[in-house]
Amino acid sequence: MLQTIPARRGKAAFVEKGQRIKVINTHGAQVVDTWAFNRDDITEFMSMEHTRATGHHIIPRIGDAMLTNHRRPILSVMEDTAGGIHDTLMAACDIYRYQELGHVGYHDNCTDNLAAGMRAIGLAPPETPSPFNLFMNIPWTIDGTLSFDAPVSTPGCYVILRAEIDLVIAFSACPQDILPINGVACQPTEAHFEILG
Amino acid sequence: MLQTIPARRGKAAFVEKGQRIKVINTHGAQVVDTWAFNRDDITEFMSMEHTRATGHHIIPRIGDAMLTNHRRPILSVMEDTAGGIHDTLMAACDIYRYQELGHVGYHDNCTDNLAAGMRAIGLAPPETPSPFNLFMNIPWTIDGTLSFDAPVSTPGCYVILRAEIDLVIAFSACPQDILPINGVACQPTEAHFEILG
Repeated sequence: MLQTIPARRGKAAFVEKGQRIKVINTHGAQVVDTWAFNRDDITEFMSMEHTRATGHHIIPRIGDAMLTNHRRPILSVMEDTAGGIHDTLMAACDIYRYQELGHVGYHDNCTDNLAAGMRAIGLAPPETPSPFNLFMNIPWTIDGTLSFDAPVSTPGCYVILRAEIDLVIAFSACPQDILPINGVACQPTEAHFEILG
Repeated sequence: MLQTIPARRGKAAFVEKGQRIKVINTHGAQVVDTWAFNRDDITEFMSMEHTRATGHHIIPRIGDAMLTNHRRPILSVMEDTAGGIHDTLMAACDIYRYQELGHVGYHDNCTDNLAAGMRAIGLAPPETPSPFNLFMNIPWTIDGTLSFDAPVSTPGCYVILRAEIDLVIAFSACPQDILPINGVACQPTEAHFEILG
């Protein structure tokens, strides 16, 4: 069943070990911040800094396992029609990010979306782990300079992740509308996901 | 006053806004995992993923500010005689890391060293933030491959960091003795630091 991650909002779901999660960039330019938590102990969660230390890739590739903060596989990357461009380097946006960018007043943000998405299924994240930012385009240079670029993904492209343990998956359709990280139109959109048997 | 970070151990100290912290690679090949916490609210702490998002550098450079998870400067990089080679990508080592590497039984690790160092001054870290790994050599390629290499630092080289708020600094002289990250001899050593007025 196709489920909607509404524009600028978060959504979480339970996934059983062995199920696959298809995350779809429906309109083509939407970053989807993604988190995963061990269903039996949510203080164990997918960790970008632990994943990089074992996988030795800045961006996980097909066949790579995403590790938890206990260095166990929690998700594996099975398919990717988005050209392999995702991000593991950047924090989820938060109220402080939009203040830094000059926004006045509250702004939707991925950190609050994680909490709201998990709250809707009766949970609270133990912290805000650094997310796996699907479809986010953060190029690096050999001298270590990073930039926030528009996505190179296309409408309908997707990633398929396999659950390696029973887990809680959480998504945020990133509400960034000041930088072009969700496309040069700076117009966040919905995205979708489907849990496959 | 020169203070010792004993080999394989952690150490924490209070630092006032405006003071500078000189971190010395005494024997030349020792990685020093470094954390900083807001002294008034230790749930606000130095965050690699927030620092990269604003600084746009994989490795902070002289003049760069290290940001907290509230995106405020907490430390600034003032001097660096280590050739600018440090790491922001890798998690602190932990019991799971040494299990993964085939070690049987307990192994000293930076995660436990952070907790022990803070406990010695009456505090407990709210979580284990991804550390600023001083003198750690993690080269990347343009295709995003990472490796754990021996340090390129030299005996007595140092980094000077300036405290931008009242803070707690914590260090771990990394006890990694399986990979050559502390030198090809795989022999962790002490390091030192000094808080300058």
